[in-house]
Amino acid sequence: MKIYADNAATTKMSKTAIAAMMPYMEEYFGNPSSLYTAGQKAKEAIESARATVAELIGADPREIVFTSGGSESDNQAILSAAALGRAAGKRHIVSDGIEHHAVLHTLKKLEREGFEVTYLPVHENGIVRPEELENALREDTCLVSVMYANNEIGTVQPICEIGARCRQRGILFHTDAVQAVGHIPINVAKDHVDLLSASAHKFHGPKGVGFLYARRGVKLSNLIEGGAQERGKRAGTENVPGIVAMSAAMREAVEKMDENAQKLITLRDYLIAGLSEIPHSALNGDAARRLPSNVNFCFEGIEGESLLLLLDDLGIAASSGSACTSGSLDPSHVLLAIGRVHDVAHGSLRLSLGEDTTREEVDYIVESVKNVVEKLRSFSPVWRDLTAGKTKFYL
Amino acid sequence: MKIYADNAATTKMSKTAIAAMMPYMEEYFGNPSSLYTAGQKAKEAIESARATVAELIGADPREIVFTSGGSESDNQAILSAAALGRAAGKRHIVSDGIEHHAVLHTLKKLEREGFEVTYLPVHENGIVRPEELENALREDTCLVSVMYANNEIGTVQPICEIGARCRQRGILFHTDAVQAVGHIPINVAKDHVDLLSASAHKFHGPKGVGFLYARRGVKLSNLIEGGAQERGKRAGTENVPGIVAMSAAMREAVEKMDENAQKLITLRDYLIAGLSEIPHSALNGDAARRLPSNVNFCFEGIEGESLLLLLDDLGIAASSGSACTSGSLDPSHVLLAIGRVHDVAHGSLRLSLGEDTTREEVDYIVESVKNVVEKLRSFSPVWRDLTAGKTKFYL
Repeated sequence: MKIYADNAATTKMSKTAIAAMMPYMEEYFGNPSSLYTAGQKAKEAIESARATVAELIGADPREIVFTSGGSESDNQAILSAAALGRAAGKRHIVSDGIEHHAVLHTLKKLEREGFEVTYLPVHENGIVRPEELENALREDTCLVSVMYANNEIGTVQPICEIGARCRQRGILFHTDAVQAVGHIPINVAKDHVDLLSASAHKFHGPKGVGFLYARRGVKLSNLIEGGAQERGKRAGTENVPGIVAMSAAMREAVEKMDENAQKLITLRDYLIAGLSEIPHSALNGDAARRLPSNVNFCFEGIEGESLLLLLDDLGIAASSGSACTSGSLDPSHVLLAIGRVHDVAHGSLRLSLGEDTTREEVDYIVESVKNVVEKLRSFSPVWRDLTAGKTKFYL
Repeated sequence: MKIYADNAATTKMSKTAIAAMMPYMEEYFGNPSSLYTAGQKAKEAIESARATVAELIGADPREIVFTSGGSESDNQAILSAAALGRAAGKRHIVSDGIEHHAVLHTLKKLEREGFEVTYLPVHENGIVRPEELENALREDTCLVSVMYANNEIGTVQPICEIGARCRQRGILFHTDAVQAVGHIPINVAKDHVDLLSASAHKFHGPKGVGFLYARRGVKLSNLIEGGAQERGKRAGTENVPGIVAMSAAMREAVEKMDENAQKLITLRDYLIAGLSEIPHSALNGDAARRLPSNVNFCFEGIEGESLLLLLDDLGIAASSGSACTSGSLDPSHVLLAIGRVHDVAHGSLRLSLGEDTTREEVDYIVESVKNVVEKLRSFSPVWRDLTAGKTKFYL
């Protein structure tokens, strides 16, 4: 059996997205900035994609800037808000400890430039508390950046409540919605979001393209200077095939969202129930307020990396956390932030399901994980000490 | 007849590039940062593409960073050199007036931050003189940025001579090679280049992907912060299909380079000879030291935009200059820099040929341009004044 259970890392392009993309690689390849017919065809395709993307999140087309992906969007959103803050003498930012590195590393850069950042706790369930956010806001706060849904533990933040509190205080609110767009309903107006980042390859679109929503009136700074593309906010010849494919994938994902979510939640909870039977294991993140596709577990006494390699041998593609930090020996900053101790955080497993995942596949995953955990524990000196009572179990 | 004569704006993807891309959209869609087999397949594809790209410009694979395109590469190259300069107390940069806006606007940003930029003259032929560059270099010069070949008038700069002078003085040398890669031979070692920018869609690769060469030892600053992709120098999930297609397109372009160049130079000079028959017209840029594909003319007494629209009606896709600035009412900064007066610069036409261009197409272009110029002049009050001797011809 071959099971892809790492849809949070990247998704397979949908047939719809590929079909939408091809004509713009093969036939309508003109530069959208060109005056002639072939260029104008490409231009129209981009503007139609912009209208689609905007509509699907409740925005105006003029509020959408196409980028090369989620990381670029995050960087541009945060640096833009910081530039506006700097101009107004406001150099305080509120965020939290489980953001993606595209956010955290950009905040670190700003800290080196004299900004002060308050990182809100996310507690055991991995969720920011709006009242704690409220308390952290100051006169000199220029930006709040809280992700829509976490990429490792799948927790969904109270975005609307956070947004309302920011809007009331006139503070810009950015949300990294890379894991959320196409998966759970988003409406930037209702959620009071000023800046939102998204990436196509997380919802069956192509890699290398994403978008940044910036509410009208929020002035973006350029990350990439040059030509006048994207209303002068993002230079470089537009990735026409990628943009068209992204909008097609997004429309499909949003149209099937309810149906998929219902199915995924059932499978997700079935998978959680199955893995919970493994002794000294624990679900990471909130049981209910999480993405329909996300399951993340810690297993005491084992190494996540060995777990992944053995699962790969059994045909299961999964991850220990974020793909962007794999290869690193440090345990996940997200798991540490929700209070997992170093050793436990090392034994983590993220399974992110897709629309095509079946109940049989979940059964196979549960059986495989059970066997592999047992096998790894039988070799583990840590596990031996735990069971001998020499060290104490955390889970 | 349908003739695409705007290959400097963008090129049609080659069948080779599309074929190379497809498996990574359809089958090997894993995230290259993932440990499991599907991810590792993607990782291997990227590293193989990196080796190809490096080999084709005489670099080491570790010196190649994949980006979203030429503009991003230009921005990152220049900002990196500026950061190194700043750290060393050197805040002087040497460039020239006909660079792409991705370079010029980044330099403007640095000027606002306290850098001083010397813009070398390019004279009538559109070429920087190495001895003038030499004279402009100072103790506090941290960067020289001169493009390999110009995107509007196609002039090829004396890169090797410039590079040698920079290397001798220990000054970093960046070249925007977006128009050159895949079209004329490039070897970064022989040319003494430290930083080089390129874009796939200019050599029959896909839009939305490019690369930055940075010589070993030249520390890049991140433009996009986040995950540890690209040795920590460019965050964001890698555009695997785009990268693979770029390397395939580049290999093909370089392999066919000599053959194509020979053919193109013949056609180019035939086209130049044909258009030169139009009275009060002039070739822009050097007649010999120019890209094999590039023809750029000024016609006195007409508007370039009208010329383009009428040519479009006749099935010819061309441009008045850079696609990135079309829609702007200002005349080309490149044409002004080579001494064309405002009115004359407005009446410009760029025809950039491709490998598929035929002699019959060139004949049709010459005939069409002749007719359209004549027609436009017959309606032009400027032309009437010129022919009545009320105003003076420049050309």
